[in-house]
This record gives sequence, C-alpha cells and structure tokens, in this order.
Amino acid sequence: MIRVSIVGASGYAGAELAGLIHNHPEFDIAGLYVSENSADAYKAFSAIHGKFSYQIDRTLIPISESQIGKIVAECDAIFLCTPHEASVDMVSRIIDAGGVVFDLSGAYRLSDLAVIKDYYGFSHKFPDLLNQAEYGLAEWNHKNIQETNLISVPGCYPTAVLSALKPLKEAKLIDSSVIPIVNATSGASGAGRRANLGTSVCEVSLHPYGVLTHRHQPEIAEHLGHPVIFTPHLGNFKRGILATSTLKLVDGARLSEVNAAYNEAYEGKRLVRLRQSWPSIKDVENTPFVDIHWELDKKTGYLIVVSAIDNLLKGASSQAIQCANLRFGFDSDRGLI
Amino acid sequence: MIRVSIVGASGYAGAELAGLIHNHPEFDIAGLYVSENSADAYKAFSAIHGKFSYQIDRTLIPISESQIGKIVAECDAIFLCTPHEASVDMVSRIIDAGGVVFDLSGAYRLSDLAVIKDYYGFSHKFPDLLNQAEYGLAEWNHKNIQETNLISVPGCYPTAVLSALKPLKEAKLIDSSVIPIVNATSGASGAGRRANLGTSVCEVSLHPYGVLTHRHQPEIAEHLGHPVIFTPHLGNFKRGILATSTLKLVDGARLSEVNAAYNEAYEGKRLVRLRQSWPSIKDVENTPFVDIHWELDKKTGYLIVVSAIDNLLKGASSQAIQCANLRFGFDSDRGLI
Amino acid sequence: MIRVSIVGASGYAGAELAGLIHNHPEFDIAGLYVSENSADAYKAFSAIHGKFSYQIDRTLIPISESQIGKIVAECDAIFLCTPHEASVDMVSRIIDAGGVVFDLSGAYRLSDLAVIKDYYGFSHKFPDLLNQAEYGLAEWNHKNIQETNLISVPGCYPTAVLSALKPLKEAKLIDSSVIPIVNATSGASGAGRRANLGTSVCEVSLHPYGVLTHRHQPEIAEHLGHPVIFTPHLGNFKRGILATSTLKLVDGARLSEVNAAYNEAYEGKRLVRLRQSWPSIKDVENTPFVDIHWELDKKTGYLIVVSAIDNLLKGASSQAIQCANLRFGFDSDRGLI
Amino acid sequence: MIRVSIVGASGYAGAELAGLIHNHPEFDIAGLYVSENSADAYKAFSAIHGKFSYQIDRTLIPISESQIGKIVAECDAIFLCTPHEASVDMVSRIIDAGGVVFDLSGAYRLSDLAVIKDYYGFSHKFPDLLNQAEYGLAEWNHKNIQETNLISVPGCYPTAVLSALKPLKEAKLIDSSVIPIVNATSGASGAGRRANLGTSVCEVSLHPYGVLTHRHQPEIAEHLGHPVIFTPHLGNFKRGILATSTLKLVDGARLSEVNAAYNEAYEGKRLVRLRQSWPSIKDVENTPFVDIHWELDKKTGYLIVVSAIDNLLKGASSQAIQCANLRFGFDSDRGLI
Repeated sequence: MIRVSIVGASGYAGAELAGLIHNHPEFDIAGLYVSENSADAYKAFSAIHGKFSYQIDRTLIPISESQIGKIVAECDAIFLCTPHEASVDMVSRIIDAGGVVFDLSGAYRLSDLAVIKDYYGFSHKFPDLLNQAEYGLAEWNHKNIQETNLISVPGCYPTAVLSALKPLKEAKLIDSSVIPIVNATSGASGAGRRANLGTSVCEVSLHPYGVLTHRHQPEIAEHLGHPVIFTPHLGNFKRGILATSTLKLVDGARLSEVNAAYNEAYEGKRLVRLRQSWPSIKDVENTPFVDIHWELDKKTGYLIVVSAIDNLLKGASSQAIQCANLRFGFDSDRGLI
Repeated sequence: MIRVSIVGASGYAGAELAGLIHNHPEFDIAGLYVSENSADAYKAFSAIHGKFSYQIDRTLIPISESQIGKIVAECDAIFLCTPHEASVDMVSRIIDAGGVVFDLSGAYRLSDLAVIKDYYGFSHKFPDLLNQAEYGLAEWNHKNIQETNLISVPGCYPTAVLSALKPLKEAKLIDSSVIPIVNATSGASGAGRRANLGTSVCEVSLHPYGVLTHRHQPEIAEHLGHPVIFTPHLGNFKRGILATSTLKLVDGARLSEVNAAYNEAYEGKRLVRLRQSWPSIKDVENTPFVDIHWELDKKTGYLIVVSAIDNLLKGASSQAIQCANLRFGFDSDRGLI
Repeated sequence: MIRVSIVGASGYAGAELAGLIHNHPEFDIAGLYVSENSADAYKAFSAIHGKFSYQIDRTLIPISESQIGKIVAECDAIFLCTPHEASVDMVSRIIDAGGVVFDLSGAYRLSDLAVIKDYYGFSHKFPDLLNQAEYGLAEWNHKNIQETNLISVPGCYPTAVLSALKPLKEAKLIDSSVIPIVNATSGASGAGRRANLGTSVCEVSLHPYGVLTHRHQPEIAEHLGHPVIFTPHLGNFKRGILATSTLKLVDGARLSEVNAAYNEAYEGKRLVRLRQSWPSIKDVENTPFVDIHWELDKKTGYLIVVSAIDNLLKGASSQAIQCANLRFGFDSDRGLI
Repeated sequence: MIRVSIVGASGYAGAELAGLIHNHPEFDIAGLYVSENSADAYKAFSAIHGKFSYQIDRTLIPISESQIGKIVAECDAIFLCTPHEASVDMVSRIIDAGGVVFDLSGAYRLSDLAVIKDYYGFSHKFPDLLNQAEYGLAEWNHKNIQETNLISVPGCYPTAVLSALKPLKEAKLIDSSVIPIVNATSGASGAGRRANLGTSVCEVSLHPYGVLTHRHQPEIAEHLGHPVIFTPHLGNFKRGILATSTLKLVDGARLSEVNAAYNEAYEGKRLVRLRQSWPSIKDVENTPFVDIHWELDKKTGYLIVVSAIDNLLKGASSQAIQCANLRFGFDSDRGLI
C-alpha cells in the first residue's frame, strides 16, 4: 500500500480526499493534518465530518508550514489542501525533502510570474519549482504526471472548462477572432468550509462574482492556450459546477469534425463521459466524472458546449487521486469507479 | 375601481396576478376562470394556493375558449394566463367583443408568421391582430400600450434580457460583428404549475434546455432588433431569472457612454434598478423590479451585463399590472411598490 | 403618522420590520440603528438588504446602549431587535425616558428570576420592569398591550406553539397526567443574520438542537400555564416554523369541544387561520398568519395539532406591528393584510 | 458471484439497489425489469438515471406479474421494488418457482389480516406466505433472514423508528401508560419517482401528511410490540429521514440503563452508529448507516431519542443488500462500507 498524508484535511476537498483514500485499494492514510492554528486541531476527523463517524475517527494533527518537510519520511506522498499562501512554501519544503506532493491550491498552476502577481497578489519565490510543476489535468497530461514529484492539481472551473474546450483547441476548430464566452455556476462548497454570510442558506442565491478578476480565468487561458471571457456564478446548492461555453468555430467547420475531436481526445478515458443529452449537476454530484455535450448552430457557426463536474471530486480530490494513481503506476481511474 | 378578470388563475402567474389585483388600490377582481376541463374547476382559489386562504376564497369558474367573449361585458379588462394555443382564439374573441386584453402567453409576441410557424409550430390565424398587438415591455413601449386594446405581455427571459440590452442597442453601442451571448437561468416555476418529474425536488438540478430552439430567442431578437445566442438553463429554485449577457462594444466605446445609455433609458423608471453591485435572485424575488449591473473589460472591449427579475412578477404578472396601469391611465408602478 | 425607530435594523427581524413600517399606512420610520460596534454601521440599509434597494436607502446609525434613551424624544416608539443582553438595559432606559418600547428579544418574556438565571444565565436587574412588561401575544393579550409602555414580543416557537395550545388550555381540555410533546422545525433565519458554519448551505440539514435546554421551553410553559416537552429542530430552509404538538385530551373530550375551543378563541382574529387541511410552511412564508389544523385519534384520545408561521413575521416583526397597532389604537392587523 | 435481478429498477430504490449491486464484490446484476406498461420499458437504465451513464447502460425489460416466476431460473435472487399491489402476487409466484425474494414493498410486512385490510385496503390472498415471510430488519432478525426464501424488507420510517426504540422495548424500559410520540420527516424521494405536484420544487415544503392513517404506524407497532402515535412529515429535501421519538421511561429508570440497552443491542453492528451528538440527515445521506442519539429529561423521566437514515438506502436498498448478504452467507455489511 502507498501511504499518503493530507494537509488541510478538515476542509471539504480534504475530507472528500480522506474518504476516497479510505476506500482506495492501493492507498492508505498515513496522517491527517490541519494548520497550526486551526480550530479543528486535535479533534477527531469524524467529529467535523460526521458522515465518516466510526469510519475515519483519526485525530487531526496541527502542523506548521516549517514542519511539513518532516512528514515526508513517514509517507509516500502528501496532498496539500491548503490555501495557496501556505502551499507555496510547503511544496518547496516537501520537494527539498525528496517527497512527492499533490498541491490542490493555485500556488503552482500558473507559469507567468507577472500574471501570478496580478491575480494572486504576491511575488512567487520559487520560479524553478513553477517550471518543475506538472499541471494535473489527468486526461491531458498523464505522461508528465507520471514523471514528476510536484503535481499541481487544477482548479475546479478550469477542470470543467478545459475538459470541454481542449479537444476543440487541439483540433484547431476555434475561430480566434471571437473570444469564447464561458459562463459557469458553482455550488457553495467552492468557497470552502468556513462561516460565511454569503453562503448561508438565508442569503445564498444565484449571482455572478469575481467578474473579470477571477483567478481561474488566467488558469484556463494558459492551459487552453487561448483567451476566454470567464464569468463565474455562485449557485444556491452545495456541490457541482456547470459550465456553458459558447464559441465561434473556424469558417466551414462541420459538426462531424467537432464530434471527431471529442471522440479522439477522450477515447478510453473512462472518467470523461461524452453524453447524448445536456449535462446536469445531479448526474455528476458525488461522482468523479466530467460530463460533456455540445450542439452547433449551423446558421451562425457558433458552438455551445456544456460540461459538468462535482467541484469537490473531479474539480479537486478525485482528480488528485487520478494524478496519484498515474504517479504511482496505476490506471488513472483506479479506486474511483 | 377597474374590474378585471383572470383566465388561467390556477397557474403560478395567474395566482400572483390575483394577489396583486387583490391588493391594488385601483383594480378589483371581477372573476377568476380556468379552462373548461381544468382539474381545478369549481375549487376555491385558496384551496389551490393556500397562501391566499381567507384572503381570496373565490371559486375558479371553468370557461371554454368560445365563451370568453361573454365575460367582456362583466369587466373592464381580461388577463389571459393561458397557453398560447388557447390565447390565439380568446384574444380574437375579446377584441371582437370590444374588450381590453392583456395576454401573458406567447401568442401575439412575434410579428413574423414564418418565425411563429418555426418556433411555435402553428400558422397564426390572425395576422391583423398581430399587427394591432402592442408589446408590453412597460418601460419601452408605454405610449403604445396606453392606446391599444391588445397588449401582449413579454416573456420572462425577454423581459430580463431586453431590459439589459435595449439601452445599449438604442445607443448604438453593440458591435454587430460579434453576436451577443446570453446565458440565463430560471427557477422551476417558469415551467408552470403541473406535475413534472423534471421539476421534482428529487430531480431538479442546474442544466441547460431548449438550446438553440427556445421560443424566447426570436422574441428577444425581434424586440431588440439584434440577433443573440440565447441559452436558457433550469435552476434548482422556485422563482427568479438571472441573465448574464456578454457582448462586444463598438470600437472605442467608453464605459461612460455605457453608463449614460442606462441612465438615460431608465431615468424616472422606478421598477428598473441600476445597481452598484451584481444582481442576485434573492434581491428581486417577490418584487416587481429588474436589477441591472454591468462591467467593461477594457482590454478586450467586451461588456458583461447581468439582469435579474422575478419570473412570475416582472417576468409575467407585475409587468401585466404595469401594462394595465398604463392602459387605464395610472402610473406604471401604481400598486406595485 | 406614528414615528418609530428600530434598533438592530440590520438583522433579519429588524429588516422585515423596516419593510413592514415602510409600507404601513400609519407608521413612519424615524431612524434605523445598529449597535455601536456593528460592522454595518454607517452603511445604507439597502446595501445590506439589497431587496430594499431604492426603497429604504437610509443609513444605519450606530448607537450605544447608554444613548438609547436619547432617541425617545425623536420618535413615538422604539422597536428593539437586539440580543437580550442589550435589551435588558435599553428597555429600562427607554421606559425611564418615558418612551414606548417593543422588545423582540427574550429579556422581558419570563417572570421567574430563577428560571431566567437558569435558561439565560444572568440575574435580571429589573424585576419591577418584568412585572410591568406585557407579553405581546397579540390575539391573547390585546387589552393589556393597549395599556402598557413595555411590550415583550413573544419568541418565534412560543408564538407558533401557544397559538396552537392556548385554546385547549383555556377550555380545560388537556389531560394533565401526560405531558404534551411539541416537536418544531425552524428555518435557519431563526439563528440570526451572521456567518455561521451550521447554517451554510453546505452544512445545513434537518437535526434537533437545544434539546431540553432551549429558552423557548420555559416561555411556552409560563404563558401556556402548562408544562411541555419541547424539541426544536433546524431545517434546511430560510424561513418559517412548523410545530407539531401531540397531547392527551381529558377523558371523554369530544372533537366538537376541541373545534368549539378554537372557534371561540379565534373568532374575528383575522391573522389566525383555522385551516381545513394541514398547515405547510409555504402557505405562511412571507405572510403575517398563523395557520392551525388538528385531528383527534378517537381510539387513544390523543390530539395532534399543527401550527405554522413565518418566524420572521408572525414570529417576530409582524407580531411586533400587531402590538404597535394595538398600542396606538389601530386594529391589530392594520397594514398587515 | 450471486446473480440477482431487480423488478422495478426504474424507481429510486431500484436504482440505488442497482448501483449497490454493480459495486458489490459478491453480487452481479442478472436483469433489470420494469412493469409491463412502464413508460421506461426498453430504455437504457442510464438514460433514466444519468448518474449511472456508461456504468449501467443495460436495458430495462418490461415484465408482467404473471411472468415473474420465469426469471427465477435465470438468477439466484430477485429484489422487488414494486408497489405492494404487484408484489403480493409476484412474491407468491417466485416462492412457488423455488426462488429467493426480497420484497421492498409493504405487501408482506404485517401479519394481521384485519390490519392489512384497514391500512392497505385489500384482503391478502396469501396468509400462509405472510407467516413464512421474515421481516428484514437486519440487526434484529438476522438468524431468521438466513433461513427463509421470503424476506420482507422494512419500510423507511419503521427502520428509523424501530432501530431507535427496540433496544428500549427489549430492555423493558418503556412506561406503557404513556404512548410514545414519534414525529418523523422524510425527503421527497419517499414518494417515489413520478411526476407529482406536491414534490415539485415550486410546492414542496415542510408539512405533516398521513396523520393517524399512515401504513407505517401499524408496521412500527407490530414489530416494536408497542403502540406509538406516529406523525410523518414531508420535508423540502431529496433524501433522508429524521425521526424524533419522545417516551416516558418506567419509573426509576436511569440513564445508565438506557445506555446499556443501546450498547448491548448494537454491539458489533457496524451499520448502527450510536452517536455522541444529535443525528443529522447530512451525516447519513448516501450512506447505509442509522445514526442514533438520546437524552433523558431527569425531571420528568421522559427520554428523547433521535434517529436518522437515508430513506433510499438503510430505509430500502442497502437494508435489502444486508438481508441478501445474510441470506447468502456473507457479513451483513459486506459491500456496503
């Protein structure tokens, strides 16, 4: 068994990850950690996530950023479900200590220091590590994921959007004179596990946020290799993301070419489901799948592509497991379906 | 008091309308009707809509399309909350009998017979009435609404989208080489009051529907005077519509011009609220307002405009009241705020 | 016009109250206040409660407990939507200054100092005022409400439960050898407007809380004059309370006696609706009504009574308006229906 | 592998069962059937339950009650997720053909013909089979379940309530002079998968139903061996049941005796979780567990016990799997955790 630890196990993505590992045939939990000053320190994991009562009762151990390197020796890999501010340093210490790290934060997802400064507001201290980091979009980067010790697991929106748009980009089907418009709606768990008036059942409601400033816009643009106008929305539900992308195809492009692009891209990739009907959040919640469907407006040459994922699974923890599966020599979907 | 009757009073829009009239200082309910073979015939209105218990206990009287002309004599105006198939004929009979009619269906919203055939699937029998019908977008067509006996109350999505885009169109700010992209999400009450597995709390979930085929697309296009790509979505909530429109401004257009376009268009229109923050469904549900906010991406020249309404109020019944207010000489917002 | 001020106007009950007063034909808002160190101080009311945008844009003025007496001169009555800790003192200062106060907190609802100490954890400083306070259960105490300057507006659960059980108690129909069992479920707005992980849409779920320790248990018992076992539950919805009470009738009691008890108690009380079917939260949300229905198990002599209210309206703000109506000489339901 | 078939696989319980079997290490799906005139006949299972897309795409085969015996030869056991009207006959035919049947309907749960007539409205044709049927409350009847071919899987409410009350009954701790009061709230999936205005997201709301007439009342009473007053409620959520039971303990009973009763009853039963805090639906949804917690009011001697289950799992399909596990010689929780 591969022994893995989770730092930030009290949050939603960390908790899902703990559950996935608990049930995984190849991985075992070595330790569950929270940040040094977490209110959840020394509580039982299941006292916070009651669903796992009597299943995962292990204590949440507080750990500082500077101590993180020490746990490398105790396990084969570390998952960081920490804010990017914490991950920047922790990743560096884990790599220095010879560990394998899957970082679920945004700390190592972008390569351009200026863009990082613009969108995240800090100067990245480890440009070398940024180069070394592999982007963990499992269906698109599996070879590189197998050969690195630093996997940067994609953001939730980018996972939904890139899964929908990369086949078209690779097949050179996107008309570059018109910017693709991406509207996406996420459940409130995307905001993390913390008291927040905005996600109170009394206040939560459908509305846009982070318009033109969301950090996932440059992440999509970099890993798609194409600009997009990305408008995220908060929905009045717990989990899931639905992304509706509208773009102009290159002149003369036919639906059969679009179909072929998707079929080729996802041949044999069992966690991507090319559906015959429009995706819905209910079909993907609590699953590791990304569902995709599209339709062409023949009159205008615009294509509408809709993709759906569970933001906490394919958008975070189950994709992290896919990366770990690849890194340790298993099939990408091992233990997930 | 102006005495008004509602046909189709058992549905959601009809029920809201009955409530608005019940509380209106100038209007009185003359009769509440349902279709001939409605399961709700002869029930008390409040037996179906328990919220109105002891307030509106009046009996729902069944009426056939052919009898509709007869009730003209008993009242000053008739609101039709009926399917378009029924409204086509009823409107004609009411007009023939000299009545005033506010039709909340899609029967008289489009002027092009071919488009009606395409999207509604029937050949309209009354092209003359189509010409006579005034589109009841209250803030934009008030003069004409005052002078006609046939008001076609706009659809819910068109109300949200036209309120957001007409100021830009009027100000000639939309770049016509790029089609505006409109993504909108509606609560399930938009599907009407009927047993429907798709709106069951067990099944309802965020997903697109009617992609490229929804009847509100040509309605928006005709009354905007501009094509749009319109993708409606069903949300997991009861009421409200949020529409996110993304479009390219004409070259060189500045934010100040956009601001001016909105301010001029809605000067003195108290039911349109130009907000300083992004609209949210919670701010408009159970209200007659349309909330609008926008932001310009200066790098690309794309504008994002978001509008929100209560689909049953501004998207149906309260806009019908606005039309009735105008037609009978009151302020558009009389009895609504 | 009667000029009234609200202290604690940023919370949910305060905001509903502001809306009710805004639309009331006899009352006017004199001032909207928040506590001294509120994060909402100097914000526009509508910036917090966007629903009231352009309707109530007035600024929220911070005020300390010690200054409260000063505002008495500026208005005819003060509504306190403050925590009981704050209300204890404020009420005293208002009464001292000759004001009229409607306290929506629990500070003056109980008369037994030992019980207050037990359930609220403090020694009440103003036992004289406790005696002077009238309990604002509007349908049951209207005479006294008219003649006092200190009205203690009932809690949300007690309003629902007392409305259901007092007619039986008055008619001496409750078997005192078996304790009535009251199970009630409240929407999350009952917990107030504040960031709280437990009411996050990600966490909120049906479960009991405050079992055997909730402060509304002694309030029900005192004002019913009868013990109850009261188990409150949190539901996954925004507003409303449904209370299911099960009790044994005295031997030989007949259904007709029960019916008579309710009919007599609520004759002419338009805000209490004796329904012919089971109450549902949807029928009362956003309304000032309490709905009640009951059924007798003839085999066992147990009666099941279910009552429903909107916790923010009949359970707080609209009942406060009822009290104010009575105090200032209007019909109890003036401005409410 | 044990090969099993499901009749009624298009409903919610049937679908969950198909999913559990698909993932079970010892069972395999032999066939998925629907009733003869089902609208879902010949559709792919995953076309109806999109969540299982690409996982369980098998066709739903229509079958009449009279043909059911024929499928006995093709499989080792049959699960009936059919209405009780259909199950009555099907069970008889399966038993006649030598099959093993797990009936999830209420057809074989009660033994008293008069009570069946009263609550279900029909005269049971197979009293011998009623005697032969074993009640599949897995933690309480495991020996008998192992040795019969006809297992009647308990109802959802009875599972929640019996799990909470049987330990007290067995330990003779319930005061028989006061009837235990059970209030329970179920998610809307309990009403089955069908278009139904009452479970529309536009209408669903917390309210009682089936008061004093629900079929689960006699089921609880028979299998508890004790009367109860049972009031079910519909909640505005998809899945889960929370049951709050309030009862008087025998004079002098101490909390330690209550604790001992639960500990002894559930020693080694891993699917029953005796929690240290109050159960919540979120902790059990999508799980096979029943969570239980209790508290004693020492002043009155009343005990409050709260239990929670997922109505589609422990209240239906996962309990059916527990029964099948026992019947075929596996641990009760095999394949479930």
